[in-house]
Parts: sequence; C-alpha cells; structure tokens
Amino acid sequence: MNSISQRVKDINPSATLSLTSKVAEMNKRGENIISFNLGEPDFNTPQNIIEQGIKALYEGITKYTPTEGANFLREAISKKLLNENGIEYNSNSIIVTNGAKQALFNALMAVCDKGDEVIVLTPCWVSYVEMIKLAGGVPILVSMSEKNDFSLDINKIKKALTNRTKAIIINSPNNPTGVVYEMGQLEKLGRLAVEKNILIISDEIYEKLIYQGKKHISVASLSDEIKDITITVNGVSKAYAMTGWRIGYAAGPYDVIRAMVRFQSHATSGANSPAQFASVEALTNSKEYADFMKDEFEKRKKEMINRINKMGGITCIVPKGAFYAFPNVKYYLGKKYKKKVIRNSGDLCEFLLTEGKIALVPGEAFFCPDNVRISYSNSLENISKGMDRMENALKMLV
Amino acid sequence: MNSISQRVKDINPSATLSLTSKVAEMNKRGENIISFNLGEPDFNTPQNIIEQGIKALYEGITKYTPTEGANFLREAISKKLLNENGIEYNSNSIIVTNGAKQALFNALMAVCDKGDEVIVLTPCWVSYVEMIKLAGGVPILVSMSEKNDFSLDINKIKKALTNRTKAIIINSPNNPTGVVYEMGQLEKLGRLAVEKNILIISDEIYEKLIYQGKKHISVASLSDEIKDITITVNGVSKAYAMTGWRIGYAAGPYDVIRAMVRFQSHATSGANSPAQFASVEALTNSKEYADFMKDEFEKRKKEMINRINKMGGITCIVPKGAFYAFPNVKYYLGKKYKKKVIRNSGDLCEFLLTEGKIALVPGEAFFCPDNVRISYSNSLENISKGMDRMENALKMLV
Repeated sequence: MNSISQRVKDINPSATLSLTSKVAEMNKRGENIISFNLGEPDFNTPQNIIEQGIKALYEGITKYTPTEGANFLREAISKKLLNENGIEYNSNSIIVTNGAKQALFNALMAVCDKGDEVIVLTPCWVSYVEMIKLAGGVPILVSMSEKNDFSLDINKIKKALTNRTKAIIINSPNNPTGVVYEMGQLEKLGRLAVEKNILIISDEIYEKLIYQGKKHISVASLSDEIKDITITVNGVSKAYAMTGWRIGYAAGPYDVIRAMVRFQSHATSGANSPAQFASVEALTNSKEYADFMKDEFEKRKKEMINRINKMGGITCIVPKGAFYAFPNVKYYLGKKYKKKVIRNSGDLCEFLLTEGKIALVPGEAFFCPDNVRISYSNSLENISKGMDRMENALKMLV
Repeated sequence: MNSISQRVKDINPSATLSLTSKVAEMNKRGENIISFNLGEPDFNTPQNIIEQGIKALYEGITKYTPTEGANFLREAISKKLLNENGIEYNSNSIIVTNGAKQALFNALMAVCDKGDEVIVLTPCWVSYVEMIKLAGGVPILVSMSEKNDFSLDINKIKKALTNRTKAIIINSPNNPTGVVYEMGQLEKLGRLAVEKNILIISDEIYEKLIYQGKKHISVASLSDEIKDITITVNGVSKAYAMTGWRIGYAAGPYDVIRAMVRFQSHATSGANSPAQFASVEALTNSKEYADFMKDEFEKRKKEMINRINKMGGITCIVPKGAFYAFPNVKYYLGKKYKKKVIRNSGDLCEFLLTEGKIALVPGEAFFCPDNVRISYSNSLENISKGMDRMENALKMLV
C-alpha cells in the first residue's frame, strides 16, 4: 500500500544525521575515520549536573510534569533570561521542550498557515527549511554574503518581504558559519520586523560559545516592541554538553507560547522529568564548566583555522561563535582524483572521507555549495592529525 | 498581532490536563481534594530501573542517540515484541519516541493527507481526535455500545468505512472503559482492514494492566497480512510507573516507520538517552514489580467497583484492564443542587469537585457524555474515603 503522507515525502532526511550513520559503519569496519561532522560537544555533562540528575531519580521526580514544563525549571529559565539576556518573561510565557529543535518546530506549527512565508538566512541549519515545509509554510531563502563574513544583511531581507511574510528565523552565533550578529544589525532587524508585523524566531542555542571577548545579544532584549514579536529559543544541549538530555525552551508572546503548549500537549506532552530537574543546575550553577569548555573550543578553533588557512586554495573566515569552521573550497571544485571530477562540495567530502579518512559536512546541506563545515568539537590531537590528512588528500587533486 | 495558526485554533486543549492544573490550584488553597482524575500510576519507578538510569548518567550515556532510538533499546524492544507479543520486527522497523503519545502523533503525521479519514472508537482517549485533526485528517467517531460492555463492534465499523478511510485506531486495554478486546473480534477487525487496505494503529500502552486472568492480544500477531498493515504502539510509562521518563515506541511496516523517523528527525530527534538506557531494564528485568503493581491495582479496582455499584442510580461495567472505572451517571443528570441543574457529566464533575472534594473526569472528554472516569490509581485508603465523599455528595442531588 502507498501509505506515506505527502508532507513526509516532501521533506529531506537530515544530511548530517545520515553522514553520522555512514561514519559509524565505516569505523565498525576498522577504517578509523576522524569525525569533524558532529554537532555536539565532545565533553561529558559536568559532574554537578549529573549529580542533580541522580538526585531527581532518587527523589522520585519521575512522574509527568505539566506539558509546558515543571514550574521549578520555568522559574529558573525566567531568571536566566532576565539576568543573562536582559529579557523579562514570567513562567507563563515560557515552554520547556524536548530539545531546542522541538521549540522551533512548535513555534512554526503554532504560527504558520498554508502558504505563509518564513525567511531563512543562508547558510543555515538544515532543519529550519524542513520544519517550515512541515508546518505548511514556504521557506524563503535569503543568502548572506561570504565577503561580508556572512553578517546580517538587512537590505537583502527587505527585498525578500511580501504580504505573506509571517516570520524570520535568525541564528546567532550561527551554525554553520560561526558569525555573531552585531547590536546595530539586530536593532535594524527588530525595527523592520516591528514595522512589518513579522515574528522573529531567534535560535540562540550557541549563545555560550562566543570567542574573542564578543558578547551575545538577544534581539528580544532590545526593546519592548521587539520583545512582543520575538520568540527566543534556547536549551542546555550545547552550553552544558547535555545533548542527550533533550531539554530546550522557548520564551515569547503569551498567546504564541500558549498555542505552542496546546500543540505540544497532543504531540509529546512534557519533557523528561529528571532532565528538567538537572537543567536547573545547568542554568544556575554551571558557569565555570561552561567557560572551561568555551576556552577549550577557542584553543581548538585557533589550531584548526590556522591549519586550514595554510592549505593552498582554501579561505576560511574566522568563526566568532559556535564550534564550526566553514571554509570556502571552490578552488578544488572541478579538479580531479584518478580521472573522477570533484563536481561539488558533496563530491569533495566523499573524497575526503574515503581517501582522507576525515568526515566533514558538505555545504549543500546548509544551502551554501562552495563551502564545507568542519566541526572543531574534537581533541587538539585529532584536529592536528585530521588537518594533516586533509592537507595531504587535497594535494592529490589535480 | 493575530499570530496563531488555524491548526492550533482548531484543536481543543486536553480536558484531563486542565483539570489537573485546577486540582493543583485547589489543593494549594488547602482544599484537600482526592484525585481520581490522573492517568499515571501512583507508584514510584522500580528501584532496579532507577539504578540503571543512574548507571547511564555515571557512564556518560548523555549524548545524542540516533533519531530512531539507541540500538540497545530497539533490540530490547524487538525481543520484547517477539517474546511477549509474538510479533517479529527487526530493529529497523522500530522507532523510539518521546512517550507513546509521540509514537501515535508521528504515525498519523506520517500517513495522513488532508481529508483522509481515521476511525476512532468511542469512548476514547482525548488526544486521538486532536492528533488526527493536526495531521489534516478527519476523525470518524464510531461509538461502541455500553450495553455490550463497550466491546469491539465490527458491524458499526463496517458502516463507517468510505473510500477515504485511511486508518483505524484501537486501544485495548481501553482508556477510559477498561474493555479488553477478544481474539475473535481482533481477527475480524484484522481481516477487514487487510481486505479494505486500511492501517490499524494499535495503542497497547495498558497491555500489562489486565485483570481476572485475561490475556493481552496484539492484533499484529494474528497473521502476517495483518502485521503488514499494523502499527503497534507501546511504551514503558504505565507498565513500569515511568510516566515522566517519556519513552514510547512503535513497530510497524518498514516504510511507515522510516517515514516516522524522517518526520521525528525534524520535530524533536532522539529521546532522552539515560531514559532509553533505563528502559532496557524495564523491558527485560522488571516483570516482578509490574505484576506487583497490577495486583495492587486489581485490589483497588474491586474496592472501587464494589463501592460504586452500591451507590444508588449508578451502574458500572467491571473494567478488565487499565486503571479506570467508567460508570454511567445518567440517573443524576437533570437533578438539582441548590436549584442549580446538573445538565451533563461536566456539571456533575464540577459539583463533585466543589462539594464532594473529589476530582473525576467528565465523560464528554471521551465523547461519552453519560459517564464519568474515575481512576483507581490511588491508595485503598483514599479510594475508600473518596467513595464515601462521592456517595454523600450524590445524596444531596434532588
């Protein structure tokens, strides 16, 4: 029987996830691939958070929480947003989700009707586009320019607006480019969105991973008018090495958050209870370890960017946040290995995987085909060895 | 701004969840309500499962799993389905979800196109209908008759079939009626579904809670043809007192399960990792405690049914599974308290809450307005005290 719905036929499987499976297969066969494709910290969850998870299990915090999340966690999130981001939300305007991914998905399901346009700035994380399609919306891709370091280009956004524009998704610090948006750019974006009555969905999951002394700015903190049209999305996964705990959250206009709760009440209901309890510890008492991880990432970033920029033909913007380098590899496209033409960055990544034994993600996955994404969430030793492999493999292309 | 999507405007909030909040509010004010409205075991998660959760945290099982679930858990589910249910699925035809709720939601999102009809047998759990609407489908409610103990009525289902019928949802043991479907009925349903090319979505979450020596039958176990059109949904929440862990699963035709995985990869990705690890212990090594809880529920059920059937005017079918009584209260509808008419079971529950200090769920929430749902997931002492309160309150109606 032909059972599958059109909505699922229309979406693409996650390129990053299928690559992860392939690498796992190869390593099982003993190929010893170095992974630069992963989107999660290679650190363990800090011990103080683990201990709170254990406490929750001992104390029987294993029952349903309300769909919108346990009060204790929503209160901690409320305080965090006020103290760290300068945004005042009470608990009723906050929802806890199964990872920040669900916060984004809920937000789109709660606001998009069929044909509504949602602007996405590329290069971008792969799931935004598929989520918009699942919600019946139309993704409008607006490419940010590499020669301007992929920074926020208001004029390009203005040109993309129509009377069907419902929302814009921004992501700073950015996956995959590492760009961090500046105050002035965010203010312009906020004013534009207020003027045109467009929602801003602000994915701030990489907030804590900002380098060179730069500071994260939450667009919702810039004015009350901007706050009224912004859904701020965040979670504990990247900042506290808690990817597998699956705790994200969103804060925003009361009616939008309540619509997200209503949707989630029939889709999954509340998130894992012990993880909600442990997340309070992450948000209130784990700055030291988060800073330690950030410092480690910064060292690795320096090493990786340094090595990449010494390879012939490759140029790489210095990422200011997140844990990815996103070099331009156009120089190598069209070259050959054993008479086989490297047509695109997908071919290049395939070549580097099979011949170089390193796993990168092709830029096509982020709607930016001249680039590749190289995660520096890996040890300095592996980065050094992996960059050797990359350099040697690229020399084989003619 | 009018931001909310039509899909969310069209769904009803969960009646059971909003009642839970109301009761919590009243108890905060010191009203000492006895709760018979809850859909979760009042037991703690068994200690051996807690210990495996702790082990997972100590051993760093805190990273992303694949969207479809960790291999170790899918293999345990595969064995469980073979050994306990007589259905052979390999791990690739199994998905782990954020609770069984998400398994049902994913299934409907993966198979329903706009206008597809999905048959739901009432009385039924409230979320089925809202999920079908969220997936663009049309819920077709077919009422099972109380005078036949709410058993599966194939003739009524036949009459509801059209050329848009895509699927039928069944739930045995049933929430709210406690009915357990018989082998012969399930065989007829399976044959009908095969003949008409209709999917069966079989929600078996109350599988372990069956009384009077009755046996659970998985419809997918009845023949290969039936298995090919059946999605079996289950989870660890009700059987092992693990509601807050949020681990459910589905097994079914390979292409449907892969579509569910693809959908979930953009909606939430994998479930909580330590909970997946602990769920292996639940599925493989926790029969004794599950049996203990079942025996406790059976004692409570006897006490509750005994008390209900002694109250004037109320009749109650003896539930064969789950942990709810679903008595008919029609006798009291139309009566008055202090000149206020009790028009429906919603009014009756409101009256019993404010005057009797007990919380029940009105039958309207299950599309069966002559009944009320009374959960016996509460101590024998509270059941005894609560039934006293109910009996006394009902005597005040004239």
